[in-house]
Amino acid sequence: MGQMMNQPMLISSLIQHADRHFGHKEIVSRRVEGDIHRYTYRDCHRRARKMANALDILGVAMGDRVATLAWNGYRHLELYYAISGKGAVIHTINPRLYAEQISYIVNHAEDTYVFFDLSFLHLVETLSAHCKSVKGYIAMTDRDHMPAVTRIENLMCYEDLIDANHDQYEWPSFDENAASTLCYTSGTTGNPKGVLYSHRSTTLHAYASSLPDALCVSGREVVMPVVPMFHVNAWGFPYSAPLTGAKLVLPGPALDGKSLYDLIEQEKVTLSAGVPTVWLGLLEHVEKNSLTLASVSRIVIGGSACPPAMMKAFRQMYGVELIHTWGMTEMSPLGTVCTLQSHHLQLSVEERDAILAKQGHVICGVDIKIVDDIGNELPWDGRTCGNLLVRGPWVINSYFKGEGSNVLQDEWFPTGDVATINPEGYMQITDRSKDVIKSGGEWIGSIELENVAMAHPAVKQVACIGVFHPKWDERPLLVVVKKPNAEVTRDELIASFNGKVAKWWTPDDVVFVDALPIGATGKILKNEIRNQLSNHKMPTA
Amino acid sequence: MGQMMNQPMLISSLIQHADRHFGHKEIVSRRVEGDIHRYTYRDCHRRARKMANALDILGVAMGDRVATLAWNGYRHLELYYAISGKGAVIHTINPRLYAEQISYIVNHAEDTYVFFDLSFLHLVETLSAHCKSVKGYIAMTDRDHMPAVTRIENLMCYEDLIDANHDQYEWPSFDENAASTLCYTSGTTGNPKGVLYSHRSTTLHAYASSLPDALCVSGREVVMPVVPMFHVNAWGFPYSAPLTGAKLVLPGPALDGKSLYDLIEQEKVTLSAGVPTVWLGLLEHVEKNSLTLASVSRIVIGGSACPPAMMKAFRQMYGVELIHTWGMTEMSPLGTVCTLQSHHLQLSVEERDAILAKQGHVICGVDIKIVDDIGNELPWDGRTCGNLLVRGPWVINSYFKGEGSNVLQDEWFPTGDVATINPEGYMQITDRSKDVIKSGGEWIGSIELENVAMAHPAVKQVACIGVFHPKWDERPLLVVVKKPNAEVTRDELIASFNGKVAKWWTPDDVVFVDALPIGATGKILKNEIRNQLSNHKMPTA
Repeated sequence: MGQMMNQPMLISSLIQHADRHFGHKEIVSRRVEGDIHRYTYRDCHRRARKMANALDILGVAMGDRVATLAWNGYRHLELYYAISGKGAVIHTINPRLYAEQISYIVNHAEDTYVFFDLSFLHLVETLSAHCKSVKGYIAMTDRDHMPAVTRIENLMCYEDLIDANHDQYEWPSFDENAASTLCYTSGTTGNPKGVLYSHRSTTLHAYASSLPDALCVSGREVVMPVVPMFHVNAWGFPYSAPLTGAKLVLPGPALDGKSLYDLIEQEKVTLSAGVPTVWLGLLEHVEKNSLTLASVSRIVIGGSACPPAMMKAFRQMYGVELIHTWGMTEMSPLGTVCTLQSHHLQLSVEERDAILAKQGHVICGVDIKIVDDIGNELPWDGRTCGNLLVRGPWVINSYFKGEGSNVLQDEWFPTGDVATINPEGYMQITDRSKDVIKSGGEWIGSIELENVAMAHPAVKQVACIGVFHPKWDERPLLVVVKKPNAEVTRDELIASFNGKVAKWWTPDDVVFVDALPIGATGKILKNEIRNQLSNHKMPTA
Repeated sequence: MGQMMNQPMLISSLIQHADRHFGHKEIVSRRVEGDIHRYTYRDCHRRARKMANALDILGVAMGDRVATLAWNGYRHLELYYAISGKGAVIHTINPRLYAEQISYIVNHAEDTYVFFDLSFLHLVETLSAHCKSVKGYIAMTDRDHMPAVTRIENLMCYEDLIDANHDQYEWPSFDENAASTLCYTSGTTGNPKGVLYSHRSTTLHAYASSLPDALCVSGREVVMPVVPMFHVNAWGFPYSAPLTGAKLVLPGPALDGKSLYDLIEQEKVTLSAGVPTVWLGLLEHVEKNSLTLASVSRIVIGGSACPPAMMKAFRQMYGVELIHTWGMTEMSPLGTVCTLQSHHLQLSVEERDAILAKQGHVICGVDIKIVDDIGNELPWDGRTCGNLLVRGPWVINSYFKGEGSNVLQDEWFPTGDVATINPEGYMQITDRSKDVIKSGGEWIGSIELENVAMAHPAVKQVACIGVFHPKWDERPLLVVVKKPNAEVTRDELIASFNGKVAKWWTPDDVVFVDALPIGATGKILKNEIRNQLSNHKMPTA
């Protein structure tokens, strides 16, 4: 055995590190109340210790689940550290799920307490009748903002708990494999399933995700995670920012273009992260008002692929690099990030763009492979599509309480994505396996077709689905939302595919709609679109 | 317990990762034979697997120590992975130590085999008579370069072992706390002591040392570690380069200015690392020949503090940032790196230089504190000097075989350095505790006085020591090597301290010498200078 110090990797170490070594660096939050709150990592640690004492008094024990229904803000961050730090499990709930799904999740997780932002008061009132394990609800606000009347039993005030407790708290030491965090997948099929992270997986993910070729988080960055803290730990920023000493900006509930822009300008945000639809909103606001994005150098994109047209607009007009990442709730979430390597710097802009359009290269710790339907590994030639499998120390082994047990396939986790990998290890998602369009026995990747459609100046949003075709089984159909005041016809749009994809990949038809259905994590719900258009008759049929 | 995949952090994972995901990236080595060798991470992994099979046949078992006496080169890198990967312990020996020290170390470690570069043939011939545990010696060369006559018994040829074995090898899985690497301190007092790293400590150090605010290693860098692979794992680059996919350039035995320069130019090195004396040699070569350093953006400095004058010369003349790091063999080695934070970017050049002159800020995982002689923690005010203590998962717990047992002080490792820490956590070494000059009961830091002297254009090298003074106990004495053809008098040099340090810190006298004694790791041996000048009579005495 080696003779080095035996220190478990615990989440409490991260906030202790930030307090001791970056104590003065700022955390800035937009509150539900509407105003801007600012304090430091040292303040955050002090209040997290107070909250840990409060949780002790509430009887929260090692391993107990404590839920949050909250936006990105400083109180939510304090709970990240107070709950996990004391050895309990923070269960972050996506408030955009249906109320029945949320009460299913709370009951399944056996949450002991629920902390919530005032935005979710009515949701919590609905929930409280159905969640038997919950001993109390804590509104994340001060006494002045507490609801005057409520039907929630045992409602407490966050700031009262802080005020009532002292800030002396010795974070306990325990096995680094202990559970720290619970997050449910949105579960498009069946009930949501819980992913239970450990202190070890979370800490390793925080190191790896901060690497230069991952999210490149440092003490010189001002980081604004727009991706919610209720959705896979905001891609790890609540951990990687204290680890690296980055200034943290938390946008609260205001995720529209103007609110984000104001915060970016005011706090000089350098690095942000979120799903493509958020950046579409920012782009519209900036374009409409002829603004600049001077402080921002990078925006990390995940959740779904970013349309190349949007990447180009951000870079050419505003000097902002949009960086693809790919991951899953089951992966903590980061698997790949698309950054260039030394020998790419000599390539032409077009060649580099072709690389940057991919989902990227693994970060060290994660391994990937593609396999056919019977599990044989497929070549890394950049063309062959296969089912994407992953493994690594921050990848799931099994779901909470064994839901859907034996999720692994020969010790690899099957992602449900279909992808190619090129000889240099750059992976590109071509589809969700359930969204692949099967035309005459061959696979057509809907994402590539969506990218071509998005490049048309009149297109605001698009989904490509396979619909029934009597001869080919399925053929691609574009479902399009046009930009305000923009015009494009079906034939013009189909003609725009000429020379950009194989002829037999060209969509057979276009349907124009006012909006696309969006799920709880900001993704387009193709299932719902398929249901709505299941009787669509192709002109080619 | 969390429900994530249970994967031990093993050194074999790093080379597997590099093979799968950066298989085509290059490793370029200057060989002892004089020529340049180039191949890829994939080749390296293949040959490491062949060597692992060879080690199996030689009977090397889990935990056995296997020694190397070798420069930075691809065969040494293969041994890093073959030996540790199979569960044995690579023991890197500093060939610059005295032969008696080396045979003490080999016997103490009970090394089973010794791999050596041909440069060390005579050394090995001397050793072989005294090292009873060693079953065989392997010359790291091919059949053509093997010595015709030798008195080494059981001498083998590296390339014969490679050729005789196939490349199928399944790296075993075992406890990540298993020993991986053994490195002895140079031991200025008493016998050298062994530091035994684990797979866990080495892997965590590789992640942390690659972070943007640490050495910032990425797939866009071409890294040339000049710091030897026999000295604390070349600061971790043999692990962090495969982790990040950096191209690796290994300079072999040729560490003079011209040889380094040629390799830098040819391979377009972007990042290098080593002790200050090496960079002095490079600087002289570049200045003398009116060259540029176009590809290089950063040089990492460790081992001893870099004279501010040299930092300025590299930046202003060649656009190269010299970055201070600080660590120890007992720390794997990295503890602090001096990089700026967001709010420093607005400061003046002088203010930033004052920060960059410090040893830097901890990388996450390491914690530091300063204490007085009875262990009380001292304030982080940037002025108070105290004994520097460290802890972290890549910091020593005890020495190999319990030498000097109970090395920790309340679970912290006492570094033997004296330092200040400023309110932002930036640490500055003011002295080795044994080199501090104690004048009238107050401490004078010799390093600050050396920095002032180095700023004089006529000074090439300097050491400041305390010598006996009848009134003040000790007073500072400068021992100076002048630059060729440069002139400066005692009085001029002493006058140059005016206004730069407190009056009572000003050295009492100067002694000019032709050269300073340098130890095995490139550091100036102040002990020896003190012995030589113990009878020096100060003019003030």
